[in-house]
Amino acid sequence: MASAAEVTGILNQTQVYLTEVLLPFWIEHSPDPAYGGFLTHFDQFGKPTGETTKTFLAQIRMLYTMASAARAGYGNGRCAELAKMAADFILDHYWDEEHDGWFWIADRQGNPTCRDKVGYGHCFGVYAFSEYYLATGDERGRRAALRAYDAICRHMVDFRHGGFLELFHRDWTPLAGATSGGDRKSLDVHMHMMEAFTTLYEMTGSVSHRRHLEEVIELILARMLHPKTGLGIAQFAYDFTPLPAINFDTTWGRDADPEAGKAAKPLDQTSPGHNVEFAWLLLHAADVLGLPRQTYAGLLRTMCDHCVAFGIDPEYGGVYADVPMDRPATLTEKQFWQQGEALVALLDAYLQLGDETYWQAFRNVHDFVFGKMIAWEAGGEWYERLDRQGKVLDGALAHSWKINYHSVRAMVQTIARLRKIVA
Amino acid sequence: MASAAEVTGILNQTQVYLTEVLLPFWIEHSPDPAYGGFLTHFDQFGKPTGETTKTFLAQIRMLYTMASAARAGYGNGRCAELAKMAADFILDHYWDEEHDGWFWIADRQGNPTCRDKVGYGHCFGVYAFSEYYLATGDERGRRAALRAYDAICRHMVDFRHGGFLELFHRDWTPLAGATSGGDRKSLDVHMHMMEAFTTLYEMTGSVSHRRHLEEVIELILARMLHPKTGLGIAQFAYDFTPLPAINFDTTWGRDADPEAGKAAKPLDQTSPGHNVEFAWLLLHAADVLGLPRQTYAGLLRTMCDHCVAFGIDPEYGGVYADVPMDRPATLTEKQFWQQGEALVALLDAYLQLGDETYWQAFRNVHDFVFGKMIAWEAGGEWYERLDRQGKVLDGALAHSWKINYHSVRAMVQTIARLRKIVA
Repeated sequence: MASAAEVTGILNQTQVYLTEVLLPFWIEHSPDPAYGGFLTHFDQFGKPTGETTKTFLAQIRMLYTMASAARAGYGNGRCAELAKMAADFILDHYWDEEHDGWFWIADRQGNPTCRDKVGYGHCFGVYAFSEYYLATGDERGRRAALRAYDAICRHMVDFRHGGFLELFHRDWTPLAGATSGGDRKSLDVHMHMMEAFTTLYEMTGSVSHRRHLEEVIELILARMLHPKTGLGIAQFAYDFTPLPAINFDTTWGRDADPEAGKAAKPLDQTSPGHNVEFAWLLLHAADVLGLPRQTYAGLLRTMCDHCVAFGIDPEYGGVYADVPMDRPATLTEKQFWQQGEALVALLDAYLQLGDETYWQAFRNVHDFVFGKMIAWEAGGEWYERLDRQGKVLDGALAHSWKINYHSVRAMVQTIARLRKIVA
Repeated sequence: MASAAEVTGILNQTQVYLTEVLLPFWIEHSPDPAYGGFLTHFDQFGKPTGETTKTFLAQIRMLYTMASAARAGYGNGRCAELAKMAADFILDHYWDEEHDGWFWIADRQGNPTCRDKVGYGHCFGVYAFSEYYLATGDERGRRAALRAYDAICRHMVDFRHGGFLELFHRDWTPLAGATSGGDRKSLDVHMHMMEAFTTLYEMTGSVSHRRHLEEVIELILARMLHPKTGLGIAQFAYDFTPLPAINFDTTWGRDADPEAGKAAKPLDQTSPGHNVEFAWLLLHAADVLGLPRQTYAGLLRTMCDHCVAFGIDPEYGGVYADVPMDRPATLTEKQFWQQGEALVALLDAYLQLGDETYWQAFRNVHDFVFGKMIAWEAGGEWYERLDRQGKVLDGALAHSWKINYHSVRAMVQTIARLRKIVA
């Protein structure tokens, strides 16, 4: 087992990093005093790139990050203040009073430049504003979360097959097929809907919010995992027929795929990062639903065992982006966000399943993050993409589609779990 | 083919009956001057029974009946006035500000006595208030329809399997299983959801309302009709596994089933009344969607051919309630509402498919209605239930669950179709 000294050491290191390095970087550098909201474009040296586009996703993730940090007790009030700044800017500029829903991209002043409706963003709207209300009690947060939830219920739900359509024009006409993606469903969006409904239900205690959370969980478990391996499948037709995953034109996962624009991925390819993220979010949903974590222990084991076996690089450390379900990875680059999700899930596995293997795997990823992924000299956010050995391939610390949601959340959640282990 | 004289004769007879008998009965006898809304309890002699319960269903159907009659040009303004009376009473008394949705039963003053949420009623809420807005332009109607639609989207939709849950406690917790019915889905509610979404989309032209209407149609066609016969199956598990139909404790279909409380019906039993009602409502949905009626001509033929072969009594006339899918009926009583739906669908079949058989079948049912079902001496509403030969078994003209929705709508729709045939 991990020694108390070892765990305490990592706990202290992580706390210092979060409170003295990572949060201060964002608190000091990202607010936009001129127009409100946040500037979220930083190069590998931690300098603003000059780009001022304000995507809904980056602003709403800033809201989530600051609200969740505040609720977890960080920032001495400053995180709550920044969360309010984010809420103000989002509420002032992104809502479409004519057609419901949030616009997708705005300029620095907040004028919308892309009015498409993106389901992924609407998940985060519910998630972040619910978290904001829970952190601050600001009634505007509750109302905004419920308004976003209504937009999801009115426009995204597929009354024919269940689940959610994901990509729309401004008036909620689904986008075309092919790389426009309007004819597909994804594990990504359904998983984030589960995440959003979890915090929504935590906020409201509503009977229907609980039922819809349970329905989304059942749907993912029954239709979006591989029937033999139990691992995640990325994309589907409306009727949940698995489809080889392609990259969509509407970007939010640029950080998630170095192969963007290339051929469709084989169906036996899976994302260890999404798998373990789903696993720990599912256990968190169980907590909020009042179910024993044991309910989903088998799924947690499946996801983490595959991640340990094929997702983690035993030689250089860290988690690969996409790997086959039953054999080692061939693409060995490492992106930032999978590292953060693996940290949290592997600690859940260690706590729930009591197997030393998961602690060792956590140590592998932790050492990779603290040794290679964190841009220590540039303010402490994480690089976007490294080669197998840890050399920077894409050093951007932040842009329209990459911000602090994965890094800060992973640290907040890691600390909470390390404290449980120490206790 | 039907001669012009024959059609004109029936058209005139029907118009006189609707405008001189049926509508005046309701206009003169049902308004409640003391408390607003309508008293909807009349015995077989057309006399008030003294019962004053005001179910949401009876009030909302009165709203639909009067609004639709007004929109079709009847009543010289009086139907529109009564529609407004219905809207006033419903808006004042039935909405649950705390939990969303409409209460199910109230007393004469409008105080709720059953606060359950019944999906069937919520379909009619959308349907009737949309019709009311289309008939009168009263903005309150549009808002009420959209509010009811939101309640459906928030609480009734099954995000796991698609379709709708149907029976709930006040806070939208689904009722228990067995005869409480909370674990079932029905063709009845899904068909009425299609009907409601059709008029909703007619009112709004909304992209999402159109898509949801299309989804409900696809769902019914794919999951709720028998794969071999194409005929309607009444009840299902949440995942659309067909189940032998039972009667629910929460009543609205007392008029629909003389065997209430008896054993579950065999799975090869079908309702010719629902089948033909679904067929003509589907063709109406096609009209509103701008699709050719030909799209659903095959389904119309299937439903009407079965109705002609096994649903209609060739000897004494009229339509049976429930019959086997492939052989003659054994239960030969006749209820009121199936007669009305058959009149409309058989004229659609005659117009669309051009087969004399459907005209003859229409004549059979028309003669049965005008000869046996209409309580001429008692004001002209229809009896509830007759034996095979036409003797009254249950003469109630109206009560909590039977009012003028089927009778008036059938006459309005019949007249419109007879005019097309004559033209």
